[in-house]
Order: sequence, then C-alpha cells, then structure tokens
Amino acid sequence: MRILFVGDVMGSRGRDMLATYLPQLKGRYRPQVTIVNGENAAGGRGITGKIYKEFLQAGADVITMGNHVWDNRDIYDFIDTAKKLVRPANFPVKTTPGHGYVYVQVNQLKLAVINLQGNALMAQSLDNPFYKADELLAEIHRQTDLVFIDFHAETTAEKEALAWYLDGQVSAVVGTHTHVQTNDARVLPQGTAYLTDAGMTGAYDAILGVKPEKSIERFLTQLPTRYEVKEDGRGVLGGCFVDLDETTGRARKIEPVKINADNPFDFDA
Amino acid sequence: MRILFVGDVMGSRGRDMLATYLPQLKGRYRPQVTIVNGENAAGGRGITGKIYKEFLQAGADVITMGNHVWDNRDIYDFIDTAKKLVRPANFPVKTTPGHGYVYVQVNQLKLAVINLQGNALMAQSLDNPFYKADELLAEIHRQTDLVFIDFHAETTAEKEALAWYLDGQVSAVVGTHTHVQTNDARVLPQGTAYLTDAGMTGAYDAILGVKPEKSIERFLTQLPTRYEVKEDGRGVLGGCFVDLDETTGRARKIEPVKINADNPFDFDA
Amino acid sequence: MRILFVGDVMGSRGRDMLATYLPQLKGRYRPQVTIVNGENAAGGRGITGKIYKEFLQAGADVITMGNHVWDNRDIYDFIDTAKKLVRPANFPVKTTPGHGYVYVQVNQLKLAVINLQGNALMAQSLDNPFYKADELLAEIHRQTDLVFIDFHAETTAEKEALAWYLDGQVSAVVGTHTHVQTNDARVLPQGTAYLTDAGMTGAYDAILGVKPEKSIERFLTQLPTRYEVKEDGRGVLGGCFVDLDETTGRARKIEPVKINADNPFDFDA
Amino acid sequence: MRILFVGDVMGSRGRDMLATYLPQLKGRYRPQVTIVNGENAAGGRGITGKIYKEFLQAGADVITMGNHVWDNRDIYDFIDTAKKLVRPANFPVKTTPGHGYVYVQVNQLKLAVINLQGNALMAQSLDNPFYKADELLAEIHRQTDLVFIDFHAETTAEKEALAWYLDGQVSAVVGTHTHVQTNDARVLPQGTAYLTDAGMTGAYDAILGVKPEKSIERFLTQLPTRYEVKEDGRGVLGGCFVDLDETTGRARKIEPVKINADNPFDFDA
Ligand SMILES: [Fe+2]
Ligand SMILES: [Fe+2]
Ligand SMILES: [Fe+2]
Ligand SMILES: [Fe+2]
Ligand SMILES: [Fe+2]
Ligand SMILES: [Fe+2]
Ligand SMILES: [Fe+2]
Ligand SMILES: [Fe+2]
Repeated sequence: MRILFVGDVMGSRGRDMLATYLPQLKGRYRPQVTIVNGENAAGGRGITGKIYKEFLQAGADVITMGNHVWDNRDIYDFIDTAKKLVRPANFPVKTTPGHGYVYVQVNQLKLAVINLQGNALMAQSLDNPFYKADELLAEIHRQTDLVFIDFHAETTAEKEALAWYLDGQVSAVVGTHTHVQTNDARVLPQGTAYLTDAGMTGAYDAILGVKPEKSIERFLTQLPTRYEVKEDGRGVLGGCFVDLDETTGRARKIEPVKINADNPFDFDA
Repeated sequence: MRILFVGDVMGSRGRDMLATYLPQLKGRYRPQVTIVNGENAAGGRGITGKIYKEFLQAGADVITMGNHVWDNRDIYDFIDTAKKLVRPANFPVKTTPGHGYVYVQVNQLKLAVINLQGNALMAQSLDNPFYKADELLAEIHRQTDLVFIDFHAETTAEKEALAWYLDGQVSAVVGTHTHVQTNDARVLPQGTAYLTDAGMTGAYDAILGVKPEKSIERFLTQLPTRYEVKEDGRGVLGGCFVDLDETTGRARKIEPVKINADNPFDFDA
Repeated sequence: MRILFVGDVMGSRGRDMLATYLPQLKGRYRPQVTIVNGENAAGGRGITGKIYKEFLQAGADVITMGNHVWDNRDIYDFIDTAKKLVRPANFPVKTTPGHGYVYVQVNQLKLAVINLQGNALMAQSLDNPFYKADELLAEIHRQTDLVFIDFHAETTAEKEALAWYLDGQVSAVVGTHTHVQTNDARVLPQGTAYLTDAGMTGAYDAILGVKPEKSIERFLTQLPTRYEVKEDGRGVLGGCFVDLDETTGRARKIEPVKINADNPFDFDA
Repeated sequence: MRILFVGDVMGSRGRDMLATYLPQLKGRYRPQVTIVNGENAAGGRGITGKIYKEFLQAGADVITMGNHVWDNRDIYDFIDTAKKLVRPANFPVKTTPGHGYVYVQVNQLKLAVINLQGNALMAQSLDNPFYKADELLAEIHRQTDLVFIDFHAETTAEKEALAWYLDGQVSAVVGTHTHVQTNDARVLPQGTAYLTDAGMTGAYDAILGVKPEKSIERFLTQLPTRYEVKEDGRGVLGGCFVDLDETTGRARKIEPVKINADNPFDFDA
C-alpha cells in the first residue's frame, strides 16, 4: 500500500503549495492513501470547515491535526461530523469532540490513521501517548495490521521512543510539529517506517512559516508580538512517501518528500 | 574555505565512529577546518581532558559543546587551558570558566568559531543568544568575516530565528542538541549557510544514542531511570560540510553529512 | 475527626524538628490522625525504610510523598509492603509500585488519605489528577466520606482548581511541594478544607531547606552545582490542623501550623 | 519609613477592593509610600492609562508590573511618560519601553522601587535578575539605601534565592505573580524584609481571580478555553506592610496584609 503524507500546511501559502503540487506528487507516487496535516491551515491557527472540504476535494483522504487543532473555533461546528479528520487521540476522553483515529478503505484493505500528541515540552498535558497507542491498537488490530501514526510532538526523544516502542506493531510513525523536516527516514528493525518530522508546507523564506522579522522580534524583545504567517514568496512542501507490504503491515520503504526553491520538483523524474 | 562539522559525539560508540570515518571524510571533503561537538563524548555526559586530546589528535581543530558541558567534572581542570574548546558563550560572564569562541588560523585567514546555547525550552537560563551574538560579532568582525556558529538549542523556531537574524553577518549557523539531523541545509538569501541540526554521532539503533529500552522505560514509568548510552552495534555519524567564499565570508554551499547502515559511506564516491 | 498534617520533611534537620515538636503538637491538637510528607526525608531526596519506620514510631499514621519519591532507591525494597506510605496515585498504573491511597481506621470511622501530583510545570507527566481523583473517589466513597488529599504540585492555579473541583466531595485538599507555607487556609463553600501549601519542615535559614549559598550559586552560574541540604542551625516546621465533621465528612476548620525562630511554639498556649 | 504594598490587582473586582480598603489601610498603617502591583488590573491582562491614573488618584505612589505588563496594548501609549510605573527591569535593555525602577521622594529621603521578573518556569526569558539587581544597585546605592523590590516570579526557590542574595543590600524583597499570599514574612539576618508572595487583590471565590468553572475547565479539557476574570462576589486583598529604619535602610518589620470574608478588616483594631 502506497501512502503519501504532507506535513503541517501553514496558511494560504501552504494551501497553494498543496494545490499546486499534490497532483504532481500523486502522479509520481501513485498513493492509494493521501494524508495531510492541517493544524495550521487557517492562517496558522487551526482549520475551518471550508478548508477541510477543500483538502478533501484536492485529493486528501485524511486530515491529521495537532496542538493547534482548537485554535479556530470553527472546528467545534464540524469536527463531530468530519469523518476524515483526526485530532490527537490522547486528549481527555470525556470532554474532547472528534475522533483520534479513522479507517480508510483501499479495495479490500483497511488503513487505520491515528493522530497522537507528545507530552514532553508541550503546553498541553494529555494522556500518556504510549499507553494510548496500546489501547487503540488493541482495538485496531482486530480490524487491520495497516496502521499509520502522525505523532505530533516537540522532542526527538519522545518521537524516537514511541517509534521504537511500536516497532513491529504499526506500519509507520511519522512526526510533525517542529515544521522542519528531518533527515532520518528509515525502516526500523521490526518493520515500522519512521521519520522524526515530515516538515511543513508553506512559505520557504520564513521561520516555521512565520514572517522572519516577526519571529525574530519576539526573541529580541520578549514582548507578546503577534506572529504573522508569511503568505507570499517562495514555497516549501514537506512530507514523505511510505510503501507498505499489505500482507504483513510492515513497511518496505519510506522516503522524504521535499519541494522548495533549492530542491524544485523535477517534472521529468 | 572548506569546513567539516561533526554533530554531538555520543559515548564510545560515537568516538569509534569519529575515529573510523574522520579520515575518510577528510579524504573526500579536504576540509581546512574540522569542528566536532563533544558535549556527550564521555559516556553521554560531558568530555574529559583525555578525550579532548584524542579528538585533536584524530584531526579536530575545534571542539564545541552544549548544555552537557559541565556534566563530567574533569572539565573544570582543563577548560581554561584548552585553547581549542568552546562552550556556550552566553553562560554568565562573571562565573563561567573557559571560552565562548576561538579563532582558527588557516594560512593567512582566520575563522572564528562560536558556540551559543538557546533559551527556549532549555533547562538553563543563559544570556540572550541574539544579543550575545551581536556583542561577540562587534569584536570578531574586526578580525575576520569568516564566522562559524554551533547553535545548541532545542526549538526549531529559535534556531531558524538566530540564523535569519545573523544572515549576511556570519558564514554559517549549524544547530546541534536534538541529535537528529534535519533535512533543510541551505544558504540563506544574504549568504549564511544554515542547517537546523547536524545530528549525532554514535549508536544507530538507539534513541538519541541511548539504549532504546532505557529511554522507553522512562516514558512508560515516569521514574528517574538512568539513561544508558548504547556503546555497541551499528553506528551513525551526523554532520555537514560548508564551503565559504573567503573574500566575502559568505557561504557557497552547505550539505549534510550522514553515515549509517542505511546510508553507508561510499568509498568510491 | 482531628487531623494533623506536617509538610515536606527535609533531611536530618527536618527529622529533628519532627521529633522535637510532634509530641508538643499532639498535645495541643490531639489529632486522631497524623500525616507527614516524607518525600525529602532522606537528605532531601526520597525516603529510606529506616526513616519510614522512625516516622511511624514518632507518631505518624500515614506518610505521603511527591515527585522525589523515587530518589532514594531504598524505596523499591519496601514500598510494596509499606502499608502506611502513599505515593502520587496518578503515576502510571501499569508500572508503578506502591499505593496511591490508604485507609486509616479511627474507632468506627475510616479516613482515606490520597496522594496526587500536579502536571503543570512539573518534570514528570502523570495521569490527569482531576480524572484520577474522580476514579479513586468512585471507589473510596463506597467506604467513607472522610477523605484527605495531599496534592503535590507547583502552580497555585492547579492546586486551587483541584480543590474547587473537589469541593464538597472530599474533606481536605492540602498542597505540598513549594516548601513555602501559604496564608490562605480556608473552608471552601461546599465544605472542603484547603491550603495551597503546608510549607516545609527543616532548616529555617535556608532556601527550601538547601544551604543558601548553594542555591544562589546555581542561579548565578547556571552550572549543575549539587544542592546541599542544610542540616544545622535554626529550624522550621510547616503544616496544618484540620477538624472534620464525622457525619458529613465536611471540614469544620483548617488552620496553619508554623513553628520557627520568629514564631516559636508557645508551650503555654 | 513605612511602606504599604498591595499585590496583583485583578480586574474590576480587584480595583473595587483597592478603592474600598486603601483608605482604611492607610488609616491603620499610615504608610509614607504605597505601592500597588497592577499587572492584571485591566480585566486580568495588563493595565490602561486610565486605570494607572485612577490608582495614583486613589493613593498609590508607584505601580509595579510583571509578565502581563504588555497584555493591554494601551501600555505602549503611556509607559514612557508614566513616571510612577515600573515594569520588570530585566526585560531587554535595547527594545523595552518604560522604566525598571523609580525613586519616590519622602521628605528628605528617597526610596527606590525596583521591579524584577524571574526566569525559572516563566514563559519569557529575560536578563538574569540576580546580575540585573547588582547592576541597578551599583547605580541606586549612590542615591539611597532604601530599596524595595517587587520580584515577580513563579518558583519559591528563585524568590528565596534572590532575597538571600540581596540580604543586607536592599530593604525589602516582596514576591508577586502566584496570586496566593505566603505565610513566611520575615526579616532576614542582614536586615532585608522578605515575603515570598503578597497574594492577589480581586475575587475571593475564584481561582487566582478567575471564575472557578473556567479555570477547572481548562485542566479537564486541555482546550484553549478563555479565562474569565470573576468580577463579582466576595473580595480579597493581599499585600504587606514594611517598616524601615531610615538611617540604615534595614527593615524593622514586615507583616502580611490580608482582607477577605474569612478575615474581614477590623475597623476597630
Ligand atoms: Fe504545526
Ligand atoms: Fe504543532
Ligand atoms: Fe547532545
Ligand atoms: Fe545538548
Ligand atoms: Fe518537597
Ligand atoms: Fe516535591
Ligand atoms: Fe498576576
Ligand atoms: Fe504574573
């Protein structure tokens, strides 16, 4: 099973990059499932129902989220009926709307897509993502061995630890949240594909997608300056491609996807 | 000017990787200056005088450090006389032994190597690294325009912000600390080479160089289990190569260096 | 039901203060239950089996703990058989030895003593203490309405929030961990006694029980200087007295207990 | 010299409490200088020019601030001309408007009032407050030995450490920020009056001045619910009174000031 994942889409520049390159990437990788992290899609802060639909129409099968999931209050209006959107599964069970995982049907097969959030150095304090993964897999493994996790976390330690913990139990653990793609895509010894961070999709001449001068100003002044997402200029798209052995659920390979002015998409490749 | 940088060398496995591959890398890149981050060289915690000398003999010109600089108390005995070792320059001026930057002479030219540490999500609270860079550059720019910074920091935001802040004023900003190489090496618009993290050098089947079961145990139990550095098995080396225009101090190019079982060193390349 | 609580006993100076004043305090308050927080009893770091027994012999009925519970590895040898020791109940259920609450029999009545730890600004990431309290109370309320909680937490917000959340459901929420007694003892509207922090028991001319020069040195140097508990000089004892209505479980009153050189124990009061 | 200090005034309920009780407190303590922390005066978030003037007219001589100083953007319009307002002195020197300390003239004498902010567990990363105090005192001590510091910080360790560090060099170190008054007012061995936290001024049946249900909701849901300041109901006023020996600058005594429904102001005392 071929899966294409696109990391945190940041504002309108990110949505443009997605619209421009998703068809090209689909042409190249012929993914059977396309997953897009949309936690920053609406001006850097959350997502709207309108953007959610746009993403599906543009070819996404599942939208994953992260700590910014609730930033745009539009989410409360559509999350319970959004069948293709997953927010971190380890938010409190009793009070959190929406779903933490979803199944995608591909011919006779099912892929489970889980969204989890880390606790280390994160502002929110959620249920332990390791035990939450155990709990969800006890359920999911009755349905399928094909499992993709978007682990939205800050530290490399927590990300690597979850991947090694689940090695052999899930098909892929792909990290998001830092907005910088890492150069460590690999298949772990028991067959789980891993990438610490898929990187972001948005403005290239920016700091995590934010106007450089605004981000720098905060470090210089320590004042509560408002971040402004960079909406113009050169773009970047970050993600990865994963190929799974459908009989075992193990990954055959994982490779990063990176498009920017220094690494333009090669239409002839 | 050609510069080779090697990221956080972690324990004996890291020292072995350095000993094995530094000659090969020198053969390929012919660096005029070789810089090695040694903050984890002694069993993951700091560095000893003996290891410092080994690194110099193995071909390092400068050793950079980070938050773990003081972990091995041997450092206090030799840091003030260690002419080739730099610890984060933004530790308190009044009380911190050692040096925050050093010059390396290459024929008629001088390269300044600075070590700085970030404040965002770090346990220590140091002088603002942005203003510290300004202060040091006011001095250094009287000597040279060739400046390499090892910025030891946790968050991608602080790392990118410092690089963009100093774009055009220094030759390179290369990050360390997360132990995972990022896939974003680039030359910024005004000529500063940038890489968010160079990655680590040590065990490949490990979590930041630590035995996976020990790191996982901490996330599962929240008990103060002691990390154990993985000292055997397959290795990884992370770093980067930077080429500078000596007349302007600007970077011509930067590329990641990565050696591991999935990306073995190609002796014929 | 009359309950005496003594806050974090810090090292030998704290143990001396407890030995000296517990008899006096018992004479004054005639508590039916005496609870002592022992997370720092062994040189500031955890507790030993020997000290645990000493505390019981000195008149403690229950020993509560906190984030330092595992610092002295002696704990692993005796915690499972220590019937009067409670460690934070919201450590992971699967992997944590010991108990999170205990019953104390007083004539025909039972008092449940719970230990919980906060998550806000704490190094460990535990199960949500609010939901954990719900879960434990569902069980405990089948046995008794007399419930005392030692909530070991950093922020005043999390402490006040838990107390207001449980107001009317438990008899008392008393905070520990900051080592400084707060001046806000009160009975909340629905009958729960509350004190943000009971304060510590140990050296008075010290910083949280640590030698001032050692604590200051860390803020000045940002080096990993080792804390040294102050073991001599003037002492302080912090705690509180709570009186409960046994038929309802509600608190009649709560008052701070504070003994130090500026507020000596008045033997004639 | 007699000084009255009032801790974080929180929203309109806090302003009402100040208006009601400041005359009474002045009658009792006859302070020569009255200092009020106003960082939460405007709906919990910062202060406006209008409120600043109200406070001066109500009898405050100096307004101190804290991490919330910039929350209400009105501050940028009047801070540079506000001669009686001090914001944390250790914000970056180059970019921060306003002043970090101010002198108050009392007959022939001058009192310096300094505002500093802690770094431990705080969201902002400011200049080291210990060294900043040294720097300011080198200047101030040429003018006066009467020095009052409002140290706005989270941890009891950093607050106690600064007080012990400055013991004998300043007249008083009084903490703010946690909104809960501590029960540890004392004069340190070399003559500096100290109180870890003066407590807040605002609604009494509230969590740090916020509506309980709103604060609890955040701990239960981990959603970004907006805090709502409680503006009605019973009130609390927290502060302290300090008496200084004018010839030495040392404190004669410090005592907490606390008014609430359980500890009503005794008009006849
Ligand atoms: Fe994001
Ligand atoms: Fe995120
Ligand atoms: Fe490191
Ligand atoms: Fe590090
Ligand atoms: Fe403690
Ligand atoms: Fe503690
Ligand atoms: Fe405040
Ligand atoms: Fe504050």
